[in-house]
Amino acid sequence: MKSKPRGFHLITNEVTNQLSQLSKIRCGILHLFIQHTSASLTINENADPTVRSDLEAHFNKFAPENADYYQHTYEGSDDMPAHIKSSILGSSISIPITNGQLNLGTWQGIYLGEHRNHGGQRTIIATINGE
Amino acid sequence: MKSKPRGFHLITNEVTNQLSQLSKIRCGILHLFIQHTSASLTINENADPTVRSDLEAHFNKFAPENADYYQHTYEGSDDMPAHIKSSILGSSISIPITNGQLNLGTWQGIYLGEHRNHGGQRTIIATINGE
Amino acid sequence: MKSKPRGFHLITNEVTNQLSQLSKIRCGILHLFIQHTSASLTINENADPTVRSDLEAHFNKFAPENADYYQHTYEGSDDMPAHIKSSILGSSISIPITNGQLNLGTWQGIYLGEHRNHGGQRTIIATINGE
Repeated sequence: MKSKPRGFHLITNEVTNQLSQLSKIRCGILHLFIQHTSASLTINENADPTVRSDLEAHFNKFAPENADYYQHTYEGSDDMPAHIKSSILGSSISIPITNGQLNLGTWQGIYLGEHRNHGGQRTIIATINGE
Repeated sequence: MKSKPRGFHLITNEVTNQLSQLSKIRCGILHLFIQHTSASLTINENADPTVRSDLEAHFNKFAPENADYYQHTYEGSDDMPAHIKSSILGSSISIPITNGQLNLGTWQGIYLGEHRNHGGQRTIIATINGE
Repeated sequence: MKSKPRGFHLITNEVTNQLSQLSKIRCGILHLFIQHTSASLTINENADPTVRSDLEAHFNKFAPENADYYQHTYEGSDDMPAHIKSSILGSSISIPITNGQLNLGTWQGIYLGEHRNHGGQRTIIATINGE
């Protein structure tokens, strides 16, 4: 997954374009797992980009930088909030596959949450189960 | 899933009553996926209903309506908080199946979080894996 | 899982030591499910222990004891916050298995979140899918 700026990013197409096997699955589950503790995967609205910027604003307020109770500060002020967001939002998502396609709702898309200022490339492991 | 008022709802029986295949699975996983970005699925206590109303009160405080940093406001004051709750709580749950039954703990039940004031009907996709 | 004090605990080795079958799986998923509504499973940094104590401090602030809106209070002041943390962090995690090993990132470990003061023993159900 290419390096992305801090914030939430809609990656549905970037993910499915790399999963040619999807089309062969009649019924199953796609599991996506991000191998990092300062980024996250979640599902949310695929339409209005202000949902993504509002999510970023919300989590910046409710997992703030420089909280007086942080001891883990030597990796930068964005690091501990990134760990918190990672556990709140989660490291993995699983999505049903039906007749060769992700069975997402009309308004659902896959989000990558990049919680560091300069997170660099991120690795996502995709596992397909089904037949 | 029938339309439900805003709040958390215990839906364990409503779900399992529709899954006659469960009884044939000796060992596996039930995956439930809600196809909406303003509702959620989670697991919590199946006994005292005040756990559900306290959860609702909590999330209403920590994902408030009318926050001054929201830009996504044109779908109503309950909409952006609903998107936030959906990502915090999650769109899917997976539960072990053992000897034909969900292997939940004694106090665990399946919750649907309805985060809109008038969310209408909600669709949940159930996928069973196992043998 | 042995009784643990309130807080976040790195349990990667305690889990994998009990899963001798892992080594036979070339490609699959490990699903872990905790059968309790006042404890949680999540993935976070496996190195600096202050990440775990900062997570505990954070969730104690953002899922506080004795909030004036709690009605579910008769099981102790740590009980309702524990239910909230359980739903925010989640009751299950799933991790890819590749060539007989958990395919975690370099810095990722499995955390058990013990959210009660005296939670006692906790049961985790492990389900392996794959071949």
